[in-house]
Amino acid sequence: MKNKGNLLIGQSGGPTPVINSSLAGVISEAQKQSKINTIFGMEQGIEGLLHGKIKEMPKMTEKNIERLAFTPASALGSCRYKLKDEDYFKLLKIFRQNNIRYFCYIGGNDSMDTCNKIAKFTEAESYEMYVIGIPKTVDNDLPCTDHCPGFGSAARFTAISTICSGRDLESMKTFDNVVISEIMGRNTGWLAASSALLKKDLRDAPHLIYLPERIFFVDKFLEEVKKIYAELGYVFVAIGEGIKDENDNFIGAKILAKDSFGHAAIALSEGPAAYLARTVIEELGLQARYNRSGTIQRSYSESASDIDKKEAFLIGEKAVKLAVNSETGKMITLVREEGYEYKCKTGISLLEEVANIEKIVPSEFINKEGNFITDAFIEYALPLIGSGVYEFFRFK
Amino acid sequence: MKNKGNLLIGQSGGPTPVINSSLAGVISEAQKQSKINTIFGMEQGIEGLLHGKIKEMPKMTEKNIERLAFTPASALGSCRYKLKDEDYFKLLKIFRQNNIRYFCYIGGNDSMDTCNKIAKFTEAESYEMYVIGIPKTVDNDLPCTDHCPGFGSAARFTAISTICSGRDLESMKTFDNVVISEIMGRNTGWLAASSALLKKDLRDAPHLIYLPERIFFVDKFLEEVKKIYAELGYVFVAIGEGIKDENDNFIGAKILAKDSFGHAAIALSEGPAAYLARTVIEELGLQARYNRSGTIQRSYSESASDIDKKEAFLIGEKAVKLAVNSETGKMITLVREEGYEYKCKTGISLLEEVANIEKIVPSEFINKEGNFITDAFIEYALPLIGSGVYEFFRFK
Repeated sequence: MKNKGNLLIGQSGGPTPVINSSLAGVISEAQKQSKINTIFGMEQGIEGLLHGKIKEMPKMTEKNIERLAFTPASALGSCRYKLKDEDYFKLLKIFRQNNIRYFCYIGGNDSMDTCNKIAKFTEAESYEMYVIGIPKTVDNDLPCTDHCPGFGSAARFTAISTICSGRDLESMKTFDNVVISEIMGRNTGWLAASSALLKKDLRDAPHLIYLPERIFFVDKFLEEVKKIYAELGYVFVAIGEGIKDENDNFIGAKILAKDSFGHAAIALSEGPAAYLARTVIEELGLQARYNRSGTIQRSYSESASDIDKKEAFLIGEKAVKLAVNSETGKMITLVREEGYEYKCKTGISLLEEVANIEKIVPSEFINKEGNFITDAFIEYALPLIGSGVYEFFRFK
Repeated sequence: MKNKGNLLIGQSGGPTPVINSSLAGVISEAQKQSKINTIFGMEQGIEGLLHGKIKEMPKMTEKNIERLAFTPASALGSCRYKLKDEDYFKLLKIFRQNNIRYFCYIGGNDSMDTCNKIAKFTEAESYEMYVIGIPKTVDNDLPCTDHCPGFGSAARFTAISTICSGRDLESMKTFDNVVISEIMGRNTGWLAASSALLKKDLRDAPHLIYLPERIFFVDKFLEEVKKIYAELGYVFVAIGEGIKDENDNFIGAKILAKDSFGHAAIALSEGPAAYLARTVIEELGLQARYNRSGTIQRSYSESASDIDKKEAFLIGEKAVKLAVNSETGKMITLVREEGYEYKCKTGISLLEEVANIEKIVPSEFINKEGNFITDAFIEYALPLIGSGVYEFFRFK
């Protein structure tokens, strides 16, 4: 780009506690770049953009950039929107009208696909625009990167909430017997696996972890709960929300209701945790509860990981540097360095290698019985939840 | 007490993030008191004690006392146990055997009743023992005290998780429409009310709050959701888990299952949040989710309130001082001082004035429509969640 152009930034998909840290990184770096004239933001992502929701961003002070980085959810608004054929020319018109020459999009699998398609389309139309994807997802399921910004913070919340509510169950064991905790991740169990990151000993939660990567057998689950109950007198079970049975049906997804017209189409399922708690009560005669923190786990800003926040910001900065350097069709990645101490630098991959591919939890991270994780997973994920996690004291 | 005696400490009822801070206060003070020889702990409260589960506590360093104060749930183990007639003489025997002369019990309504009965019984039997109750409950429903240790921390988690998951919903409003958040408190809505403590403007969550103190009408609720949806395009609703309809039935408490013998006795109910989310989908055709953080909200130690933690410790210390000063049948209270700045000192009330009485949210804290709280509640509760809550930045 010889002349000055404008930068357009958007956020897409489910928020994370650090998605605004990447936005802050983009704004901070873009304000420094002489090639960038004005920063525009999409309201509600590409979906809002298609409805003309584009706004000139205010010039931000360093203090406000810092405040932005600490704010939960997507400050610009987000969307889940799949581009239609007729959308591309509409977008091109908007890009031209606003002289958008740098395009950064913060999102997960689908959003990287959107980025990739926009990069290819504008190139084919000979419209000079540099498109860079900025990864984010609490699900940690993007390929080509060691991990995804957002995962470390959600994993921290999951790990802390599991050990805390596990100690709660342990201290109430003469009253409550079993807790089932439902954890986000429809197709991958990265977050459910993270429930074990702060477990100190056999008594600590979780005692069983079931990931969507393995078929879930209710009978096997009941046997395993029974066995641990006999040993400890209480059982804490972490499950991924997307666990399925041998027929590929979601556990607890039986439609419980119909709408006022008698259609089941939009009915809400009970969900696996409520279903399994009920099954434990019925089949084992034990007292069971379920926790389902839902969208709290992907937004709880007080427990954002400091490392995650720093990396998210860095990736935002890098994306702008890359775009200004006339690169396009790329996503910034995190590359873990060798050595005992945790260190990550940024890397680059092609958007087309990332788009629409889900990275599942590999077999080396899941135990043979399919009901817990391995030490290799702890080694991988523990550094990502950051510093300052309390000790969890025991008298003995 | 002229000669040296031993102190017995126990924890009872649902844990809080600072119940161990009170325990730490008791141990810290008891170790300093020359009248106290040995500190004994009950394992699993009075229920464990009746099974002979009493242990000599290790001499604790200041560092370990501090670590204990930062640990979630009840470090000694807890119970929900109502004393039977035959239990009293069993207890007296245990007190005699272990020369227990000071008895401190950390708990809520039921535990204060237990304390009161033990105080009266030992007095009637002319066994010299000084019984002091230490209040704790996330439900904040004890009378005679400005607030209860444990409430501030759970309120902090509730307030932060509500504004964060509310921002999450707001940023996803083109995809999700309604979130129903289920908050602890079977008979009182103190915690559900706290969901609004960090709300900054009309857009922020929650938009509606329903407390167990008011009858819940599903039709009225649906109308109110519809109205706010028309205004904002999304609605965040906080409900107390114990909301009931005009026939005194819990909302969503329809028994969904029977046990393997066909009995419904121990079946788990769907719960009000899942039920109302489903009702919104069916009746209004909107996309709805529900969050139910369950036991996480009463155990999440990373968000313990600094003020709550300090007060819980102080109350533990005071209890020991009072017992050593030959007082009995009392509970330590918190007394808010006059003035602009928040300050609390400790007070004393009679256990018999506390036992079994539930303090509900008063009318001055609930709006006329019964669907939100008043500014007077914010003024009351905001100081209790402590310092260091992030700002929640908005571009405008």
